[in-house]
Amino acid sequence: MKIHGQPYRTIWLAQDGWRVCVIDQTRLPFRFETVTLGSVEQAADAIATMIVRGAPLIGATAAYGVALAMRSDPSDAALEAVMALLGATRPTAVNLHWALNRMRVRLVGLKPRVRAQAAYTEAALLCDEDVALCRAIGDHGLPLIREIASRKPAGGPINILTHCNAGWLATVDWGTALAPIYRAHDAGLPVHVWVDETRPRNQGAALTAYELGAHGVPHSVIVDNAGGHLMQRGQVDMVIVGTDRTTATGDVANKIGTYLKALAAHDNGVPFYVALPSPTIDWSLRDGFSIPIEERAAREVTHLSGLNEDGEVASFRVAAPGSPAVNPAFDVTPARLVTALITERGVAPATAEGLAALFPDLARGAAA
Amino acid sequence: MKIHGQPYRTIWLAQDGWRVCVIDQTRLPFRFETVTLGSVEQAADAIATMIVRGAPLIGATAAYGVALAMRSDPSDAALEAVMALLGATRPTAVNLHWALNRMRVRLVGLKPRVRAQAAYTEAALLCDEDVALCRAIGDHGLPLIREIASRKPAGGPINILTHCNAGWLATVDWGTALAPIYRAHDAGLPVHVWVDETRPRNQGAALTAYELGAHGVPHSVIVDNAGGHLMQRGQVDMVIVGTDRTTATGDVANKIGTYLKALAAHDNGVPFYVALPSPTIDWSLRDGFSIPIEERAAREVTHLSGLNEDGEVASFRVAAPGSPAVNPAFDVTPARLVTALITERGVAPATAEGLAALFPDLARGAAA
Repeated sequence: MKIHGQPYRTIWLAQDGWRVCVIDQTRLPFRFETVTLGSVEQAADAIATMIVRGAPLIGATAAYGVALAMRSDPSDAALEAVMALLGATRPTAVNLHWALNRMRVRLVGLKPRVRAQAAYTEAALLCDEDVALCRAIGDHGLPLIREIASRKPAGGPINILTHCNAGWLATVDWGTALAPIYRAHDAGLPVHVWVDETRPRNQGAALTAYELGAHGVPHSVIVDNAGGHLMQRGQVDMVIVGTDRTTATGDVANKIGTYLKALAAHDNGVPFYVALPSPTIDWSLRDGFSIPIEERAAREVTHLSGLNEDGEVASFRVAAPGSPAVNPAFDVTPARLVTALITERGVAPATAEGLAALFPDLARGAAA
Repeated sequence: MKIHGQPYRTIWLAQDGWRVCVIDQTRLPFRFETVTLGSVEQAADAIATMIVRGAPLIGATAAYGVALAMRSDPSDAALEAVMALLGATRPTAVNLHWALNRMRVRLVGLKPRVRAQAAYTEAALLCDEDVALCRAIGDHGLPLIREIASRKPAGGPINILTHCNAGWLATVDWGTALAPIYRAHDAGLPVHVWVDETRPRNQGAALTAYELGAHGVPHSVIVDNAGGHLMQRGQVDMVIVGTDRTTATGDVANKIGTYLKALAAHDNGVPFYVALPSPTIDWSLRDGFSIPIEERAAREVTHLSGLNEDGEVASFRVAAPGSPAVNPAFDVTPARLVTALITERGVAPATAEGLAALFPDLARGAAA
């Protein structure tokens, strides 16, 4: 996607050919700054502190983290250590473990002296594949939007609600939930996006609004509380969200608050779609409530980052001093509330059978 | 209730015996400041800008606004003008119109020269009655909490989720939703309150957390997105919220986002109670969706007020610059999702029959 007319991915190699550049997503939307990662420790820190976030981008960053590690120490011991280090950064997104496992499988049988080169090649491949997966999600999601458009009065906007950021900033490019929306907008369909602010970290108001604005997609920011009301009043035609981990049975872990929107969609007959590349599917799990849910710092609830009256990015307290806070980062939307899953191979019912029919190779592998 | 050991109501007469003092709720929790209202215009402004808020306190402030107006001009024309001025400040809370109508009925038959005195007397009476209503809501809500406590392991906390602020700051004293909680805490029951932050204006994180903290009630602030997840994990025993207007059939208008919590409570078998004094019932309405829903400024979504790193209260932008925002302030929870209504006369099913059985005098009057 483009920033000020210049095409960007969210992760790329520095000019030196080995360090890894990412956009500092903790500074958006107020500052567009990049960070250069020169060690696996810096990569792990970028994931843990959410300089990068979004399940696919976490996976891509972890892959490059392995490459950075192999460059300084390609031993078997180092390979295992880096798996542990990176694997502990975020507990909920399964793409992290998928990417790490893919890197391990690729590297473990190689002689240490060729591991660094192979790791860089594999990480780059993983990134290119992520772009292709997201583009395919856009292809498969577009007809769903087109179908809704065909039932609306001519020229009336198609109102799509999304939660958190599952756009290109959450992936290497294109995004998951936003990929069909970008495709629809580019195809001339009059989409309008309700952007859930997405407290506590405001990925909606900060990142989704930023990237939709940069691409020229009409949108409105709303507080997380507002979506149910808008659905009751017929102002939401569909919901599309991303996911950090989806079980083999179609239960969806996503940013905290997703479940509430799924309930409201169900109560109001609004279709609720989840867009995901297959690396986000955890074929080993059949119950969403067994997905580990990350608890993050209370300070993310009690404090916010924003632009002060002097135009500086600063931190400020919003909760009553002395009051404790609790901060679960994800919730689980049961498959029964999900209309369908939009994947790179097509649209599947959120059921074990639906997923297995689209991904017989992956589903079988996990069952074996 | 007490602030730093000193008993306060939220509205009282100044030492001069005619101006009206209120706590500036836009400055809490960081500053405890009072504002003195010397004219009906100032009273109207205090309501519109949310220096005072909460359905019962809006009604009380409007009553004193009439008194202030009558002091400077007690004519029939002035009485009608003040009804229009105050009546236009907030569209959703019905207590405003109830209080204004009560003042009109009391004053209209009097000679202008005695209206000011009568208005002050009536406003004071209305405030005292509000305190009594809230205390009675606490009496009737306490057994519901006690019953849940009896089913919990000994010593385990009773986890009660609330949305927005329906505490003493929303009323003259005691509160509506928080009245039973204060009573339970004072009775030695181990209550713990999940305080929904309540974006966009953060009445939960700012006001509810502040007043619970001041009274020593254990609580944790959570983002509005978190309540569904906590209910799924069995960490919420009951929900109690207030309301700005409840229909004769039990549909509940309350702060935006209440509906989402009611859906989650219903989905997880968590009792969902609404606490209200009878002036919050609009006996003329039988369908919640006919309640006017206030749309407030987009800036309440895109900007927040908080304490900066220098300890000053300041405004911050949190949404992407250039992105528009939409800000509906209330939503409607259908009666089917409400376990029961806690009123000053007892606990009623959220049905026309349930309310009419408790309030035959009021229900009949409206039907006539």
